[in-house]
Amino acid sequence: MRGMIVKQRSPCYIDLGEVTSKMAKQNIYDHEIFFEGYRKIRDNAANANKLFEIPALLSLLPDLHGKKVLDLGCGFGEHCKYFVDAGADQVTGIDISEKMLAVAKKENSDPKISYIRMPMEEIAQLKGRFDVVVSSLAFHYVEDFTGVVKEIYNLLCEGGAFVFSQENPLCTCHSGGDRWTRDEAGNKIYVNLSNYGAEGERESFWFVDHVKKYHRMFSTIVNTLLEAGFTVEKMVEPLPDDKMLQEHPEYRDLLHKPDFLLIKAKK
Amino acid sequence: MRGMIVKQRSPCYIDLGEVTSKMAKQNIYDHEIFFEGYRKIRDNAANANKLFEIPALLSLLPDLHGKKVLDLGCGFGEHCKYFVDAGADQVTGIDISEKMLAVAKKENSDPKISYIRMPMEEIAQLKGRFDVVVSSLAFHYVEDFTGVVKEIYNLLCEGGAFVFSQENPLCTCHSGGDRWTRDEAGNKIYVNLSNYGAEGERESFWFVDHVKKYHRMFSTIVNTLLEAGFTVEKMVEPLPDDKMLQEHPEYRDLLHKPDFLLIKAKK
Repeated sequence: MRGMIVKQRSPCYIDLGEVTSKMAKQNIYDHEIFFEGYRKIRDNAANANKLFEIPALLSLLPDLHGKKVLDLGCGFGEHCKYFVDAGADQVTGIDISEKMLAVAKKENSDPKISYIRMPMEEIAQLKGRFDVVVSSLAFHYVEDFTGVVKEIYNLLCEGGAFVFSQENPLCTCHSGGDRWTRDEAGNKIYVNLSNYGAEGERESFWFVDHVKKYHRMFSTIVNTLLEAGFTVEKMVEPLPDDKMLQEHPEYRDLLHKPDFLLIKAKK
Repeated sequence: MRGMIVKQRSPCYIDLGEVTSKMAKQNIYDHEIFFEGYRKIRDNAANANKLFEIPALLSLLPDLHGKKVLDLGCGFGEHCKYFVDAGADQVTGIDISEKMLAVAKKENSDPKISYIRMPMEEIAQLKGRFDVVVSSLAFHYVEDFTGVVKEIYNLLCEGGAFVFSQENPLCTCHSGGDRWTRDEAGNKIYVNLSNYGAEGERESFWFVDHVKKYHRMFSTIVNTLLEAGFTVEKMVEPLPDDKMLQEHPEYRDLLHKPDFLLIKAKK
């Protein structure tokens, strides 16, 4: 059962085969439909990233003044720009997607930022050492998490910080069917959790079909960091507080299942 | 929503009020019906504890030769006896339940073992320091996990090991209704997960009604250890492998939801 592929039936079908076969690593963000769909939700004034994931990620960062920062899966470069504004001396943003980096260079360029097109599985090629490595919502697309974590360890200075977010394992385990059980009024009452213990690839629909994600249990994620040599310093599963629930009652369901998991670790 | 009490409807009702009101801390194991029910499943040749929890717990222990070991919630004392057989110099087993300790003293006594009746919330009273603190499937009954973890830290020597198991957070979050969704053939297809983000007390039925358990998220459990000063060394969510599934196909559902979480930490 370990490492099995659990396919999810999807309401529509768009073949990504051509894009993925050209790249050694998955590059869904260069798919036109995916890119436009993703861009639209990121532009939305209130979304789960802005309300929960980004504040949690920033809260875990060390003081960035004078630091060299590496951003894995930098996307539109908003975080890279933030790191410079927060005092970082030098920021390297890598991403596999040409389309994302084109936006990053246009909207978030700075003399202190270098954007490099590269899958994060190849970061061993990067020159120099970093004080801080950050990654926002990218690792659930990465099959070889162990390999990437080892390379991050190698790229960090002694005492350097590694801060990342990913989809919560209670989300990544999803392996088909409806995500929720609802009562007669349509309210979500249960997460339909399955295959949490069956780690590995999942295919799902997100704007387009065949988006591949990789599920790992909480224990596997933590042990991967520890085995690479990291010390775990903090874990965060962001939830709405009472104030947030008053303003955004639509996020009450996060109390059933948080969307995100964030970890701060130290070399 | 945080710390809310989510009551589970139960098929039968036995009032534990009298027992619990006499004790400052929950002492379900001294309830006659609970005790007999529990004893029966522990005697069963193949149960989830013996197949998954105990092997995982023992695998996390350091070399016990010459060590002073404290067992929190020692129950029947089987682990205390094991620690002596594995070379421990001195073992202290504490438990809140008189009935459990009576069995421990009868079946698992040894000159190197001291059994003490004490709720684990009061371990600050213990004299001396320990090299290893172990606890098996007891913390999910403890409301003040933070307080207990701090005292464990105080009782440990520098470099001492803290190894424990508890019910997996995917189990402790359960807050009423059926635990599973089944298909037409009766197979379990989904865990009905709810209120994972709503930490706090749960009342459930296990042999008797009103058994109180306390749900904490993965992140809360880990952060509690880190904030007390511990370094986390390993997390385990035990699962059946292929061999185990051939011998015990009834445990296939653990691939949907592991029963246990184990952590090894170091002072």
